[in-house]
Amino acid sequence: MSDLLRVVQYGLGPIGLEALKLAAAKPWIEILGGIDIDPAKAGRDLGELTGLPQLRGRPVVRTWEDLPATTAPDLVLHTTVSSFPAACAQLLPLARRGLQVVSSCEEMVFPQLRHPELAAELDAACRAGGARMIGTGVNPGFVMDLLPVCLTGVSRSVRAVHIQRVVDAATRREPLQRKIGSGQAPAAFRQLLAAGRAGHAGLRESLALVAHSLGWQVEAVVETGEPVVATRDIRTQFLTVAAGETCGIHQRAEAQVAGRTCLTLDLQMYLGAPEPHDAIQIAGEPPVDVLIRGGVAGDQATVAVLVNTARRLATVPPGLKLVTDLPVPRWA
Amino acid sequence: MSDLLRVVQYGLGPIGLEALKLAAAKPWIEILGGIDIDPAKAGRDLGELTGLPQLRGRPVVRTWEDLPATTAPDLVLHTTVSSFPAACAQLLPLARRGLQVVSSCEEMVFPQLRHPELAAELDAACRAGGARMIGTGVNPGFVMDLLPVCLTGVSRSVRAVHIQRVVDAATRREPLQRKIGSGQAPAAFRQLLAAGRAGHAGLRESLALVAHSLGWQVEAVVETGEPVVATRDIRTQFLTVAAGETCGIHQRAEAQVAGRTCLTLDLQMYLGAPEPHDAIQIAGEPPVDVLIRGGVAGDQATVAVLVNTARRLATVPPGLKLVTDLPVPRWA
Repeated sequence: MSDLLRVVQYGLGPIGLEALKLAAAKPWIEILGGIDIDPAKAGRDLGELTGLPQLRGRPVVRTWEDLPATTAPDLVLHTTVSSFPAACAQLLPLARRGLQVVSSCEEMVFPQLRHPELAAELDAACRAGGARMIGTGVNPGFVMDLLPVCLTGVSRSVRAVHIQRVVDAATRREPLQRKIGSGQAPAAFRQLLAAGRAGHAGLRESLALVAHSLGWQVEAVVETGEPVVATRDIRTQFLTVAAGETCGIHQRAEAQVAGRTCLTLDLQMYLGAPEPHDAIQIAGEPPVDVLIRGGVAGDQATVAVLVNTARRLATVPPGLKLVTDLPVPRWA
Repeated sequence: MSDLLRVVQYGLGPIGLEALKLAAAKPWIEILGGIDIDPAKAGRDLGELTGLPQLRGRPVVRTWEDLPATTAPDLVLHTTVSSFPAACAQLLPLARRGLQVVSSCEEMVFPQLRHPELAAELDAACRAGGARMIGTGVNPGFVMDLLPVCLTGVSRSVRAVHIQRVVDAATRREPLQRKIGSGQAPAAFRQLLAAGRAGHAGLRESLALVAHSLGWQVEAVVETGEPVVATRDIRTQFLTVAAGETCGIHQRAEAQVAGRTCLTLDLQMYLGAPEPHDAIQIAGEPPVDVLIRGGVAGDQATVAVLVNTARRLATVPPGLKLVTDLPVPRWA
């Protein structure tokens, strides 16, 4: 590839717009245009949507097919959906055209977990077309999977990996505050969580990615999700929660390997969570005990991971990739 | 390659023997033999040197050329020297034979720093012969370079990277306790440090590797090394130090980038150092503040890094590689 990466932004929601703005600031990226299904956005231009004058005249269209024929990107930043089948429907035509895609689709961080046949189909299409695709982000994609895997690189032996993340959701964007059930009745939200219709997406993908990277055969997964209930009235920039209402989630996934609980991922994300942090313990030889004070800030970091990954993706052979397949992450 | 990696251990000092023993325990490695210049070792066998019965009959020879012609390894674990020119003399013939080499040579973690022409020569020989070579370890090779680089993967922007490592040398092997000057007169040891004839090898290599990975042009490096002086008598498993004598080192390297100090590496390694730890701060957006409680144990982790890296090396194209070129580290 040339040193300049020509990029189309596919998905212009909050994360997509932030990714686009960060990408536009990189000297090694040229923004060609944007795609969003929202009729209120299509037909406008990226300068208008982002407030960045240098993006004036870069078109926004509703679908890939609506892009001008002269628009020939090297890479697509894809921020539309959490579901891999939904992402795949959008990405298969791009695979056939040999494009690179960095996607924020949570299930695509380890698509083999829920959709092995579809993952194989997209991988085959990428190889046939010379395309490279990857799902990533900060979580899933870094804090609870890639980073713990990386830390086992110093291990003679690994008995177990324990990962905790505590996020003060009051510091996060409004959609996340709503996604974690803020203000809902705990009983009703518990049902949504149990049905997988609320809460954090990607915990099982992170778990599966760590197990896969360590060559562990997972025999059983236990996953739990509980509302965190406010003990006092809470008011954020975006909403209010009364005492007794849901103010966030506590999700946990554990994997059994060779009859033992070898892998635990524990995520607490609620309004006002004290001492937010990420922690990773590798029980093994030597033991490794890592604390990230304050945690890795979600929204900023997610956008950064997408753009930074874009630079490394071209260094690997074509295919549908895992974040652990790429060279060591870095700021780009 | 086949799933089984056939390995020769080149260098049978303390680290080499430990690497060999760890490698011998891996189901994906077969040990073929060992090389050591020490006449007391050559002619014996690896079972005798390691105490591992399964290595009986695996020969130890003095030089590469003395290996039986039927010994055809895939990979060499190389643990002989800290100097890249000295390593290169041993490795150039192996490059021409298309071998894979994982080396503990500290200068080889970023050989372009002190020996760019020789690094280019070895890289060219590797490419011509289909060989892959890499220098790695826990420090240099992980804690003060690869891991900080990896953490910037979540960064929108990076203003500075600060890395500290505090090691209680009383918990380490005897050669390390001696290398840090234990028992020497501070004035004399300060001169050895200033001349680069004592202390930790590889701090400047780590600094250069971080800067290279972030695309930073280093304008100047300030490096300091001071003895740590014992304030009381100290007795370890291996030696004693009187109050007023050297009990370790405090080494520091700082890099100027664009007129600012953007990168600092600070290493304290002395007998009885309290609260040993590794710490990495990424000053940027978002800030990242990592503490590894207890630190990453040096000797065990070094050996683990060498063996774990062996599994990933075959996944990249031929050449002289940096640890940041390989896929994300992991236990193997």
